[in-house]
Amino acid sequence: MPTTLFQDRDIAFLLYELLHAEELVERERFADYSREAFDAVIQTARQIAEEHFAPHRTRNDQEEPRVENGVVVMVPEVKTTVKAVAEAGFIGGTQDAGRGGMQLPHVIASASIGYMEAANVGTASYPMLTAGAANLIAAFGSEAQKEQWLPPMFNGRFTGTMALTEPDAGSALADLRTAAAPQVDGSFHISGTKIWISGGDHELSENIVHLVLARIAGAPEGVKGISLFIVPKKLVNGDGSVGAVNNVTLAGLIHKMGWRGTTSTLLNFGEHGPCVGYLVGEPHKGLAYMFHMMNEARIGVGRAAAAMSYAAYLHGVDYARTRRQGRIPGEKDPSKPPVAIIEHADIRRMLLHGKAAVEGSMALILQCSRLVDEQETAPDAAAREHATLLLEVLTPIAKTWPSIIGQEAISNAVQVMGGYGYAREYPVEQLYRDNRLNQIHEGTNGIQSLDLLGRKVTQDKGAAFKALVVEMQQAIADAQGTGVADLAAEFAKGVERMVATTKALVAAMPADPARALANANIYMDLVSRTVYGWLWLRQATIADRALATDAGMREEPFYRGKVHAARYQMLWELPKTESDAALLQRIDTVPFDMKDEWF
Amino acid sequence: MPTTLFQDRDIAFLLYELLHAEELVERERFADYSREAFDAVIQTARQIAEEHFAPHRTRNDQEEPRVENGVVVMVPEVKTTVKAVAEAGFIGGTQDAGRGGMQLPHVIASASIGYMEAANVGTASYPMLTAGAANLIAAFGSEAQKEQWLPPMFNGRFTGTMALTEPDAGSALADLRTAAAPQVDGSFHISGTKIWISGGDHELSENIVHLVLARIAGAPEGVKGISLFIVPKKLVNGDGSVGAVNNVTLAGLIHKMGWRGTTSTLLNFGEHGPCVGYLVGEPHKGLAYMFHMMNEARIGVGRAAAAMSYAAYLHGVDYARTRRQGRIPGEKDPSKPPVAIIEHADIRRMLLHGKAAVEGSMALILQCSRLVDEQETAPDAAAREHATLLLEVLTPIAKTWPSIIGQEAISNAVQVMGGYGYAREYPVEQLYRDNRLNQIHEGTNGIQSLDLLGRKVTQDKGAAFKALVVEMQQAIADAQGTGVADLAAEFAKGVERMVATTKALVAAMPADPARALANANIYMDLVSRTVYGWLWLRQATIADRALATDAGMREEPFYRGKVHAARYQMLWELPKTESDAALLQRIDTVPFDMKDEWF
Repeated sequence: MPTTLFQDRDIAFLLYELLHAEELVERERFADYSREAFDAVIQTARQIAEEHFAPHRTRNDQEEPRVENGVVVMVPEVKTTVKAVAEAGFIGGTQDAGRGGMQLPHVIASASIGYMEAANVGTASYPMLTAGAANLIAAFGSEAQKEQWLPPMFNGRFTGTMALTEPDAGSALADLRTAAAPQVDGSFHISGTKIWISGGDHELSENIVHLVLARIAGAPEGVKGISLFIVPKKLVNGDGSVGAVNNVTLAGLIHKMGWRGTTSTLLNFGEHGPCVGYLVGEPHKGLAYMFHMMNEARIGVGRAAAAMSYAAYLHGVDYARTRRQGRIPGEKDPSKPPVAIIEHADIRRMLLHGKAAVEGSMALILQCSRLVDEQETAPDAAAREHATLLLEVLTPIAKTWPSIIGQEAISNAVQVMGGYGYAREYPVEQLYRDNRLNQIHEGTNGIQSLDLLGRKVTQDKGAAFKALVVEMQQAIADAQGTGVADLAAEFAKGVERMVATTKALVAAMPADPARALANANIYMDLVSRTVYGWLWLRQATIADRALATDAGMREEPFYRGKVHAARYQMLWELPKTESDAALLQRIDTVPFDMKDEWF
Repeated sequence: MPTTLFQDRDIAFLLYELLHAEELVERERFADYSREAFDAVIQTARQIAEEHFAPHRTRNDQEEPRVENGVVVMVPEVKTTVKAVAEAGFIGGTQDAGRGGMQLPHVIASASIGYMEAANVGTASYPMLTAGAANLIAAFGSEAQKEQWLPPMFNGRFTGTMALTEPDAGSALADLRTAAAPQVDGSFHISGTKIWISGGDHELSENIVHLVLARIAGAPEGVKGISLFIVPKKLVNGDGSVGAVNNVTLAGLIHKMGWRGTTSTLLNFGEHGPCVGYLVGEPHKGLAYMFHMMNEARIGVGRAAAAMSYAAYLHGVDYARTRRQGRIPGEKDPSKPPVAIIEHADIRRMLLHGKAAVEGSMALILQCSRLVDEQETAPDAAAREHATLLLEVLTPIAKTWPSIIGQEAISNAVQVMGGYGYAREYPVEQLYRDNRLNQIHEGTNGIQSLDLLGRKVTQDKGAAFKALVVEMQQAIADAQGTGVADLAAEFAKGVERMVATTKALVAAMPADPARALANANIYMDLVSRTVYGWLWLRQATIADRALATDAGMREEPFYRGKVHAARYQMLWELPKTESDAALLQRIDTVPFDMKDEWF
């Protein structure tokens, strides 16, 4: 059976031909690795994805977690799968070997986890949330906290959550009301309600470690008065064993359109007695800490979207190659056998859109992960700084665009499969439901767009944006003299549009920020399509050069596919930014001027 | 509670101010009606929608039909609802009073049924499919067939289905294999398998009347050898009572992403014994008959999409007005109370998109229904002919675009509601799942696009297309001298693009039809956005004129909303056709040239 997770050849292309991941082994942190070792890690992840995750994707959706006698019950495969992930070391994948981590580069860990998310995101979220919570402790916790919490989180004894959102403060973290009362022993008593807490309750682990945002009594209003706490479901004894319950109460499970395998919970803290929390780092710095972690979490959401849409795309291709139906235009003889539907031009259009979308999304995600590696381990400071700038501007895009263009790709896979695509007997409809969440959680796409235009593009006199433009110009220069110079010329027009549009918006910002930011979502669309153009131009240039070699010609269909998908991106997707640019450059106010009472 | 089905004021605007439905009462067929009577019919439909359909929308989704001991079991509210619809006369709504119908204009029947579909499409499909099957018998059946089958279908004793699709011939009707063997008594024995038959089995009625496409032994291959048959689930005795079973066997229920209340069945005909079918009309003309009916069915699918997305949009507006969260840009004081989220520019953008989409879709659907009335009852032949031409070109658009732009609107409603929009505790996620089917069934949107470009636009030397352009030019002329002349100027540019693009494609067709048709889907996008521009320009012109009167100013917010949504359509949606037009005019071949092995 062909894989319907990722195309392995593409992942290898992205890692090594596009992003030169093998160069990382020259760095001290990764000195124990080799390309072969990276590949072995990815193969392990793929095997876990296929043997553990994929087989219960449907079951985990159809028999979603439920509460019985106050206990969350779910299909048993989830527990064995989380155990397999922990045993293989992926929860602490990028963490220090000295703390029980694998000390992997982010780019290798990210590709690995992507296989699991492509196979079954509902189950993958438990280890991934645990990793996110652990990373936060690793970055900002005290030495004692690291020693206490990290080992059981890495080995799967404990799982973790991120508990930010409250019923009356969804995207508006400034309005958080959960309270933390200082105790004489230095701990705090937490009281409040959190909603949409993924993995907030279950029996998968001995304990659940909630990372909770709350206000210490007397803290300032708004975002400057929020602190971060470790709040375990059960208290932990001195010997590391799990003790008494800590008054974190499951007030209800939320039932969702998709992503059903992951419990989504309403949690009450301290409702029936003291709920102990341990401050992480300094008071009132919780949001800054959370945002540090959130950047990785945002790339993680983008990766989930890329992975799910990639899987759906491959299902669509597989179906289109085997399903025979109809005849091509001009063939009127009904006695001729029907053709495979991939012969129909509109089917190819939908799948080519999918290829450009999902391979483009994985390119973006792995690019971002590679930049995290640069940021953390590049030998010289200028390279680290450049990587940091690029990450600033790329992260909101990585969160947003894979969820948007990926949903289009999944919708196209549904459409390619027709009625079968809409039926629950086939996997793509679940992917359509699952991926829709990625536009919402971890900061809605609207929030990301405001972050991009209102913060990332303008801060430091536009340094991050300029770093991106430099990269784009480099890609254009690099394509000169190749067989894809025409695509570089198309892309250059797109870059010009992006730059001119950005200038116009930045110029309009001081006089009326609300008006200049009103169409941030359209700006996100424009920049995202341009960023995908950048990633595709680079892929096409590499592929074109490969096709000039004997080795490359032995893989001619693969490289031709890369060039052709780049052509699609440049001639079909990038021109959509023309009308966006016109609208943005005139600082259009049509939605801005709309009045409540006119709806 | 505000309605979340349609905005009644908008439906009245579309029916009377835009489409002058009250003029129909001057025609003999509708002479017993008045505007007041029309309104009473619509109010009855709305009441049934609110009292019967809406209350079990969620339950019908969550407790979907299942088979127990060979019998289809579903929630009991479906049966009482179908009964209420039949008793109110809506199944034979447009049929002759002499046959038990209500003899309503299509435009009034369509608005009425839309309320039911907005409330609960899973249940609405049973009476609607029955009406579709009955209409086919009314149009092409013999007098005896009409006498036998129509009364029990109109009064709800019998329900109906359309049984076209087979497992190996989805969109490719030419490859149908179901066989019809002639019997000495003039009847036929039907044998074969049909799939995706909505309403194909249940216990809602005494009998189910399947309208089945099959081949009479010895018929020509392809579409010219298909005949249409009435195949009841149970044979009917001479006195009209229901007799023995007719060997139509339920082979299985298909479980879908949405639209779960409607059984979707795999049916075997004649597997366990003779299955009697009665030929409708002449042999080998089945597809032509079916296509006659299909035009109404296609408008019906568009109406369902318009209705569902309209409901989702209203839920989004309602939520955005009541949910308070965050502050507007520039307001940094966290002690200020949060604002209603409709104050956020991006929320207004999403809802304004929704308004333009869903009111535009209902305008298109009611326009089409109004044209059916013209086609059937206009006093002079030229008007009937003009209506027929317009319907030819508008029908594939009416099937397609409400399902596309409506899904965007529903997705925006989900996004406006954030996590709540994604939760099954709220209604919009179901609408997102339900409406996705509308892009697939009743001829996929890809098929519609080929129909539009390959047939409707080219046939009769482009007469249908020219009729549409004449209408558009009339709308532009009519807007001159009003406050929306600037929108007319924008729209005129869109019409020019559409005309130039159409010319280029038609010119390319003879030399290489496959290539010219390859991007038919993009052409559909371009024409659809232009058609919505036409509908919105007319609405804006009417609204602008109203605002110059005292009566109009008493409803100022309503009319201002119409003008502003038209502005959005013209300045935000219509310009998206620019890149489409460029691509189409160069007869782009990027997807066309993509090779199977490159994926």
